[in-house]
Amino acid sequence: MLNGEKKIERPLRWAMVGGGRHGQVGYKHRIGALRDNTAFKLVAGAFDIDPERGKDFGTNIGVEENRCYPDYKTMFDKEAAREDGIEVISIATPNGTHYEICKAALEANLHVICEKPLFFTSEEVLEIKELAEKKGKIVGVTYGFSGNQMLLQMRAMIEKGDIGEIRVVDLQYTHGFNATDDADKYSEAQKWRVDPKIAGPSFVLGDLSTHTYYMSQLIMPHMKIKKLLCDRQSFISSRAPLEDNAHVIMHYENGAVGTMWTSSINAGCMDGHRIRIVGSKASLEWWDSNPGELRYEVQGEPIQTLVRAMPYLDDMCNADERLGALHVEGLSESWANIYLKFAIAIDAKNREDEETLSKLVYPDINAGLEGVRWIENCVRSADNGAVWVDFNEVYEKTLS
Amino acid sequence: MLNGEKKIERPLRWAMVGGGRHGQVGYKHRIGALRDNTAFKLVAGAFDIDPERGKDFGTNIGVEENRCYPDYKTMFDKEAAREDGIEVISIATPNGTHYEICKAALEANLHVICEKPLFFTSEEVLEIKELAEKKGKIVGVTYGFSGNQMLLQMRAMIEKGDIGEIRVVDLQYTHGFNATDDADKYSEAQKWRVDPKIAGPSFVLGDLSTHTYYMSQLIMPHMKIKKLLCDRQSFISSRAPLEDNAHVIMHYENGAVGTMWTSSINAGCMDGHRIRIVGSKASLEWWDSNPGELRYEVQGEPIQTLVRAMPYLDDMCNADERLGALHVEGLSESWANIYLKFAIAIDAKNREDEETLSKLVYPDINAGLEGVRWIENCVRSADNGAVWVDFNEVYEKTLS
Amino acid sequence: MLNGEKKIERPLRWAMVGGGRHGQVGYKHRIGALRDNTAFKLVAGAFDIDPERGKDFGTNIGVEENRCYPDYKTMFDKEAAREDGIEVISIATPNGTHYEICKAALEANLHVICEKPLFFTSEEVLEIKELAEKKGKIVGVTYGFSGNQMLLQMRAMIEKGDIGEIRVVDLQYTHGFNATDDADKYSEAQKWRVDPKIAGPSFVLGDLSTHTYYMSQLIMPHMKIKKLLCDRQSFISSRAPLEDNAHVIMHYENGAVGTMWTSSINAGCMDGHRIRIVGSKASLEWWDSNPGELRYEVQGEPIQTLVRAMPYLDDMCNADERLGALHVEGLSESWANIYLKFAIAIDAKNREDEETLSKLVYPDINAGLEGVRWIENCVRSADNGAVWVDFNEVYEKTLS
Amino acid sequence: MLNGEKKIERPLRWAMVGGGRHGQVGYKHRIGALRDNTAFKLVAGAFDIDPERGKDFGTNIGVEENRCYPDYKTMFDKEAAREDGIEVISIATPNGTHYEICKAALEANLHVICEKPLFFTSEEVLEIKELAEKKGKIVGVTYGFSGNQMLLQMRAMIEKGDIGEIRVVDLQYTHGFNATDDADKYSEAQKWRVDPKIAGPSFVLGDLSTHTYYMSQLIMPHMKIKKLLCDRQSFISSRAPLEDNAHVIMHYENGAVGTMWTSSINAGCMDGHRIRIVGSKASLEWWDSNPGELRYEVQGEPIQTLVRAMPYLDDMCNADERLGALHVEGLSESWANIYLKFAIAIDAKNREDEETLSKLVYPDINAGLEGVRWIENCVRSADNGAVWVDFNEVYEKTLS
Repeated sequence: MLNGEKKIERPLRWAMVGGGRHGQVGYKHRIGALRDNTAFKLVAGAFDIDPERGKDFGTNIGVEENRCYPDYKTMFDKEAAREDGIEVISIATPNGTHYEICKAALEANLHVICEKPLFFTSEEVLEIKELAEKKGKIVGVTYGFSGNQMLLQMRAMIEKGDIGEIRVVDLQYTHGFNATDDADKYSEAQKWRVDPKIAGPSFVLGDLSTHTYYMSQLIMPHMKIKKLLCDRQSFISSRAPLEDNAHVIMHYENGAVGTMWTSSINAGCMDGHRIRIVGSKASLEWWDSNPGELRYEVQGEPIQTLVRAMPYLDDMCNADERLGALHVEGLSESWANIYLKFAIAIDAKNREDEETLSKLVYPDINAGLEGVRWIENCVRSADNGAVWVDFNEVYEKTLS
Repeated sequence: MLNGEKKIERPLRWAMVGGGRHGQVGYKHRIGALRDNTAFKLVAGAFDIDPERGKDFGTNIGVEENRCYPDYKTMFDKEAAREDGIEVISIATPNGTHYEICKAALEANLHVICEKPLFFTSEEVLEIKELAEKKGKIVGVTYGFSGNQMLLQMRAMIEKGDIGEIRVVDLQYTHGFNATDDADKYSEAQKWRVDPKIAGPSFVLGDLSTHTYYMSQLIMPHMKIKKLLCDRQSFISSRAPLEDNAHVIMHYENGAVGTMWTSSINAGCMDGHRIRIVGSKASLEWWDSNPGELRYEVQGEPIQTLVRAMPYLDDMCNADERLGALHVEGLSESWANIYLKFAIAIDAKNREDEETLSKLVYPDINAGLEGVRWIENCVRSADNGAVWVDFNEVYEKTLS
Repeated sequence: MLNGEKKIERPLRWAMVGGGRHGQVGYKHRIGALRDNTAFKLVAGAFDIDPERGKDFGTNIGVEENRCYPDYKTMFDKEAAREDGIEVISIATPNGTHYEICKAALEANLHVICEKPLFFTSEEVLEIKELAEKKGKIVGVTYGFSGNQMLLQMRAMIEKGDIGEIRVVDLQYTHGFNATDDADKYSEAQKWRVDPKIAGPSFVLGDLSTHTYYMSQLIMPHMKIKKLLCDRQSFISSRAPLEDNAHVIMHYENGAVGTMWTSSINAGCMDGHRIRIVGSKASLEWWDSNPGELRYEVQGEPIQTLVRAMPYLDDMCNADERLGALHVEGLSESWANIYLKFAIAIDAKNREDEETLSKLVYPDINAGLEGVRWIENCVRSADNGAVWVDFNEVYEKTLS
Repeated sequence: MLNGEKKIERPLRWAMVGGGRHGQVGYKHRIGALRDNTAFKLVAGAFDIDPERGKDFGTNIGVEENRCYPDYKTMFDKEAAREDGIEVISIATPNGTHYEICKAALEANLHVICEKPLFFTSEEVLEIKELAEKKGKIVGVTYGFSGNQMLLQMRAMIEKGDIGEIRVVDLQYTHGFNATDDADKYSEAQKWRVDPKIAGPSFVLGDLSTHTYYMSQLIMPHMKIKKLLCDRQSFISSRAPLEDNAHVIMHYENGAVGTMWTSSINAGCMDGHRIRIVGSKASLEWWDSNPGELRYEVQGEPIQTLVRAMPYLDDMCNADERLGALHVEGLSESWANIYLKFAIAIDAKNREDEETLSKLVYPDINAGLEGVRWIENCVRSADNGAVWVDFNEVYEKTLS
């Protein structure tokens, strides 16, 4: 159980690129990183494309004025010159800028934590992965929902064989906040999400379903997709070619079948982020809207509801517990959990502690790569008429 | 609101073919038909393939011994000779016998109520449809879950435009009762369901998803499928080529997309019969496990839960109400509702009252035809490698 | 599992007093009694205080016109003169008439099934009980919700010690249908319920909480109340002295404590009929709005949800199963279950089969007596300023 | 919507008394206080009764070693001597020490934030209240669940008349973690809770129900209790005279009735913290286990579920929003919300900004006083045989 005591020797000196006042995601990064003030310390930032607004914001959240920078390049330069300069940055900017910022950061010898989807192409990810390895740096990806410890409970139970062999994977991440015709008009954060130049080749496939796809991989790391078929639509036609709704069918290598429904036009839906794993003996079901409960349904037995923080849960799950039974944890704890693991990874990398790194389960650059490959394959299938595509075909060409 | 008072002049003289002691479905027919003793009167039966067991059973449920027949042919002959002979039969036998019994009954000038899926091929349905028209008889199909009045509430709300234009249809009928390797070994009712000679070309597609497909058509009669893709598996390999799990993606003519998941290997699942209709303004969601509630989710407004028997529901819905608020109705009322409509349809047909017939909404032979076409198209898609198939292509050939 | 086959030699010849077109309860009696046509046969009735309306109604539900009587006295006289005259009646009239009809029926050598609350005073019940014994007749009481078999599951589990020793009993039967000022103005059925001359000394305590009190006794027959305290209000002041809301605290003889909240002004409440039994090891919780599920909460273990019709349930529970798993049962099955037991009791009484009678669990006259004593004690406590009263004090005086 | 930007000029210099490694509550204080690093800065502490353990812990959470003190007296002395000394402390020690620490802190010119229940007697609270006023300091009380903004939504709706006049208040805070015989044996935190010398005159009434009572007052500040009756038990007999279960009936001055059930022997219960307010038109219901949803049940209309972060909520509610729709908030946000208000109150007090103070809604010393009076009256009723007591009688004597 976590109580805020330090897990690494001292907090890492951290900066943000993006994540300023106008947008919701930056606060989530800070909530995650700064939960206990023992993993990260926010010392600098290029928070906003508008430098004055960024400086005003930065000082308001406690950053020294002279370390609120107008842009990331200046920040990397100036901080490099300080003895107490930054060690790690988080990128919370629109998708289209991730690659260049990430590359510049690594070249400035910084560790990187980046929003999902990581980049536009798997080629870009492979290039950055190589660079990170050369530089001895971590690249983490903020699949922010994936820090909920009940997912680790699912992982542990599946590993122990509690549900038998996996047969059906049922994934969904849908909501309805973009159902209306004018949904793209008012928010800056929404405008760029439907512009292919900035968002990349997908809208909801990248923005929503990469989360759930990563979570499914976290839960069942041995399950590899063999082929998939994706059918996508733009119900608000101005979004075309980017989709606001998509259905995917996956065939796994072990013969299991999976589905993903992702949508931002599922009008009125407030609980559409769900994972169900059906095995030969039992199923597990988890809803992000009620993240402290896990349904364990053994065929022929009473339905079980496992509840967060209880001693009967796996040690792997309870290791990330903070508040204890009867005390609701939410998204802020999920972010705190992944940021704590980023800190542990960075610290281990700095100390060249490969053993710690090899055991640590967190969304690293490989998780980022998988998300990009997911999008690439879905888009390729959809754009060819919703046909079956081999999940590894294009990637293997890239590798070779 | 229904209270048991007669809706037709006198109860119809009714017999069953099948539906005896060994099987669960016969009782549901009787519960439905005999709810108020004002629509049907059970006067004869060929209840069992074992004549003695059938006679014992028949007399135990109040049928005169000499009207418990060894087989349907004998029954049709003997009853035809009586002044007070049967007028309508229900067929509750394995799928593979439906066609011949139905044909014989119509030729014996009987109305017919038949289990789903109606027959093996749409050609057979078209032939029987022609025969029924010639004979002036009704063929009803027992989609037993479809009598729940909240489905009519959905129909009324969609018709009024309460959810806007339909974009996504999300259908599911899954359970886990056949998840285990030995699930097919013990029950006679299960054995024939996985034998293609008796069950026809599908297992769960026919046994489960035809219900839900009909219910979706009841709710949104204007929505026509243009093409679909079906992916089916036999997780218990002895069932091949019949599937115990399938996923279908449908494209509707208006541009909407739909999905169906049907399965009997969804281990532990006890609430897997659900319908969600997503419109441009709002969604409707109904779960068969809690059939008296309907979720109405308007984007941007509080979620509404509509509850059975309340005055705010549509008249079409409350017309089928029996028990009143706070009093749970279940599957027996659903069957009672469709059987009452069968009685009204038969009575109207007998009286040549075309106006009543044209207004009455119930699962008639066209609903049976749609179910068979659904199976035909799903199987055709699946057996060609889960490819897209035109929903009308084969059928139009059949018609021409 | 029940499937409609006869449990007694032939259906009993049955009549109703009351239960006509204007009111909801009569239909529930008929649904219960006539579920399978093998327990009761409706052959006569004095359905309505308006004889013409009653005759019209009676013939509409299939009773011969000459056996639709203007009043119960006439019915008892005329039927007594027939060879095939009635054997048992059900009383579905306002409370204030129960006693006289019941007495007249017993004197006419009829078995009686009566609505709750049985009579106004325990003295009346004791008198009728003596008369019934003298006449060798059954008096059953229609606690209509109590037929749900999950209550028998609770009984079995408590008896086996699955929850340990009972500590807290948490009962609630509330709704909001009488919350508004004008709620008493329109419905005849509601008008008399707030008139002490017809309803007796209580409104919701008698009308609602006697159900739940009986159900608690059914579940835990060994738990006896030692003393109680009742606090009642008339939020719609015209109802005074009858209450539309009451809270009761009970002390049981074993040291357990219980509470009952009963109300018809719980505005908007649609799921307010609940039973929770807390033991030293675990708790059981059942909601009438979702009657096929039972929560079994063992301290320190995952929460279990037991589902109707599953093989892991107790035989006592599954003996009353009709529709099977995945098929919702509701209030009509609950009524069918108690009516079937009334039939079995009457048949056994007729055959002087004391063994069957001693084993049969159903709401008999003792259950009716307990309900009347419950009301008496609650009202006595409330009218003395919501003070503690000894549950047996007045009753023991009555007995002596 | 909150995003971490400062609400006061600079963070307050804050220390903790208690709240060390061995116990769960300290972390909740820190999570609340340090959420954004813009309201409080943790600079010192006397974290543990064992000074070495306290120092180890303190440095592990980032406090300088020389400001980790062996006891609160030393801390107050040493810090008073520093220019950058502490300004405010939080007390997270067993109940019996609150009074002396609070008094010493105020005398050392510190603001105080204290765990509930505040003290043992209302006399003590009145004395401290006077001292705080004299010293110009704030005393806040950590009713940690009360910071959830949906409670403010309830307050706003009730104030606007959305439910009509309040009739019934239904409160519950129960769990089962102390149901077993050995529950008091292992945890230090539990041992003192059942020791009257340290816990004071109650166990669950103080430990659990004061939260819920405060929350009810927050929601409906105009509702005053006139008299109450409390029935308490010690099911684990070693706890006597302290109760592990209690039921309370309250009469409010406006004629409404309320109930509270509080228990730590409600075996298996994981969702027993609930508030239902029944008005003449509608009811509101909130469960702490699902704190982002609020049920609004208007009699005769569909049930509404209001969801956190939606624009249709009251401004008062959304002012405390942090994560946005679809993103679960939990107990850590609730604590962050009340701690932020403590900071604003302290800052306003320091600036003599009475306008801000008069508008600010937070658990101040009056809320602490009400909690103590609640316990006093409940215990007085229970110890006199569960009789009715006038809620103000003893208190008015104290005042006079």
